[in-house]
Amino acid sequence: MRDAYLIGAGQSPYGAFPDESYRSLFRTAYEAAVESVPNGLESDDVDEAFVGTLGVGGRQLGLPGPAVTEHVGLDGVPCTRVENACAASGFAVRQAIQAVKSGMADVVLAGGFEVMTDMSSDATKYWLGVSGETEWERLSGTTFSGVYAQMASAHMDAYGTTREQLSRVAVKNHANGAKNPHAQLGFECSLEDAQSAPVVADPLNLYHCCPTSDGAACALIVSEDVVDDYTDEPIRVAGVGAGSDTVGLFQRDSYTGVPASQQAAEAAYEMAEIEPGAVDFAEVHDCFAIAELLAYEDLGFCEKGDAGAFVESGATRLEGELPVNTSGGLKSKGHPIGATGAGQVVEAFKQLSGTAGDRQLENPTRGLTHNVGGSGGAAVVHVFEKETEVNA
Amino acid sequence: MRDAYLIGAGQSPYGAFPDESYRSLFRTAYEAAVESVPNGLESDDVDEAFVGTLGVGGRQLGLPGPAVTEHVGLDGVPCTRVENACAASGFAVRQAIQAVKSGMADVVLAGGFEVMTDMSSDATKYWLGVSGETEWERLSGTTFSGVYAQMASAHMDAYGTTREQLSRVAVKNHANGAKNPHAQLGFECSLEDAQSAPVVADPLNLYHCCPTSDGAACALIVSEDVVDDYTDEPIRVAGVGAGSDTVGLFQRDSYTGVPASQQAAEAAYEMAEIEPGAVDFAEVHDCFAIAELLAYEDLGFCEKGDAGAFVESGATRLEGELPVNTSGGLKSKGHPIGATGAGQVVEAFKQLSGTAGDRQLENPTRGLTHNVGGSGGAAVVHVFEKETEVNA
Repeated sequence: MRDAYLIGAGQSPYGAFPDESYRSLFRTAYEAAVESVPNGLESDDVDEAFVGTLGVGGRQLGLPGPAVTEHVGLDGVPCTRVENACAASGFAVRQAIQAVKSGMADVVLAGGFEVMTDMSSDATKYWLGVSGETEWERLSGTTFSGVYAQMASAHMDAYGTTREQLSRVAVKNHANGAKNPHAQLGFECSLEDAQSAPVVADPLNLYHCCPTSDGAACALIVSEDVVDDYTDEPIRVAGVGAGSDTVGLFQRDSYTGVPASQQAAEAAYEMAEIEPGAVDFAEVHDCFAIAELLAYEDLGFCEKGDAGAFVESGATRLEGELPVNTSGGLKSKGHPIGATGAGQVVEAFKQLSGTAGDRQLENPTRGLTHNVGGSGGAAVVHVFEKETEVNA
Repeated sequence: MRDAYLIGAGQSPYGAFPDESYRSLFRTAYEAAVESVPNGLESDDVDEAFVGTLGVGGRQLGLPGPAVTEHVGLDGVPCTRVENACAASGFAVRQAIQAVKSGMADVVLAGGFEVMTDMSSDATKYWLGVSGETEWERLSGTTFSGVYAQMASAHMDAYGTTREQLSRVAVKNHANGAKNPHAQLGFECSLEDAQSAPVVADPLNLYHCCPTSDGAACALIVSEDVVDDYTDEPIRVAGVGAGSDTVGLFQRDSYTGVPASQQAAEAAYEMAEIEPGAVDFAEVHDCFAIAELLAYEDLGFCEKGDAGAFVESGATRLEGELPVNTSGGLKSKGHPIGATGAGQVVEAFKQLSGTAGDRQLENPTRGLTHNVGGSGGAAVVHVFEKETEVNA
């Protein structure tokens, strides 16, 4: 098995961009990714591409992958669209890693995009519902926030997790997003703001939910055979893991954890040969505040049931022992569905390459990304590791 | 690079099945694939799955992969949905091969499905249009048959290809499909029938177009490390290649060939270390009769411009020198979009394992499958080879 490396990553801003198209946003992300490669990269170098999108709205629903790669001049490059709902481009990154490890490609682009803000809120609700289970959830009237509200209620009931703890996720992520020029909601919010927001799906209020976003993100993965051409400070894909589960939440035994996340994390830690949670920072899938708390437990950052206390302790703040969502996360940075997984890898790249600006951590060497599809029908975890003289 | 092997494949019947769901059709295909493995296979053996679907209609649009794998009891198995329009499951098979070659999985399921016949014809036209280019083709009123009609007109103009030659594709494929119990249009048609059918998009008539179909298909790909557990007559994946191009036909320099097919074939032949066209049989993407003729040329079965004469010569009939679409092809067997690529692999498996019934070729050792997305925005080619004492 050849080693795979992350040599560059970039994204468009996330937000509402009525003057942009899915193609123009992808171009911005692709150019930023190419720009970020330390020793430069030519488009001709790219052997293959994987693109993640849910295809929200009436845009190019078939062949959206080739539709964006042709737009950036990669029309002769084999391109495959990958979709696992909100984990679409997290899985695109995983496919890029498999392509490199397979020996079938040396330089692979993994990206994703979504345009969501040009639809009515009813249409958005309809389309987002497709990330939940269709037959017995969406068509029966359950919204996507409703699904996560059930998980929040279950966790509060089982472990005494509080609304204030949910709000602390929002406060932390907004504090980080305020330092990220690409964030959609790049402003700070107080605990009082977060606590007093209108209810969306009880117990979740507006500050416990991520926004609807447009955006794109790209990452560049290469093989060990060519990595030295592109960088003198290689970032290795130390671990990668994926998990799947029933699409419908109602089919699972418990609502207080995401088995697909646990499965993905276990596989990634095993490949990386590290203990659960042995990372310097993480980008986790906080589509709703409860999702970040569940991630703490599913990824082994704290004990089962302790996530509320863990966020309250400040451990996951920028200056904490295990900073989580330094980018602002889905909550503040935004959640253009198909872009999100690759966008998490952008943050990992920035932190590990020391280009994270005002939110830069002090010399981190190992970061994790965690991307969930739907309410946990699929999940993917990556561990990236800066190679130093010690661990190379 | 580890070698990958095809150890089993199966499909549901293709047709119109108002009493079936996408899940039940997938189950039928999965069970047939498992059943076909010579030495047997347990569901627990499956490490990973890739599922192709275009998602036609209002069904599970997000996470359709996990939605079908959970239904066959594979809910703990990482599953990724792959989509490149009509080449969705051809690319799913390719991802299964990459997964095996990467060393990250030993036993991988690749499948696909579509349910298309429960929509109005207007809705079908809308949804199928998503396989073409959206902004300047579909929304400007170009139908998908209209796109292929332009290719047919161009080929007729450049090379003197005739309507009768197009009709001969239909006659041949129906003759084969009449021997396939899974075929949707499993009846023979005469040249006169084919010539006198009503026009769909001039010069293409009804017999030059494949039907709208429901169905599912699955293939099982394993690594060289475990192949002996499953079969004593291994079928090796000798070659795999993929190509991409602009999604819109109007953006291409020429309408008389499909560059993505040429690119995919070249890569597959190079990996297989064979001359172009050096195969005993092929399943090619005949969504329209012209598409089969273009495939003859793009895959190197005949010289550029000679495809009309090639079909007329009988070379590609069941008893010809290079039988094409022994299954009946998309024309007679049917074209449930997401199932088609994996369904072609089902036919390759049947022919190479001697289980093709009335349409069995005499001891073929090497077969090719060719699956196209849209009008050629993506294409994928596989070469499968029966290992004998000579070539093992």
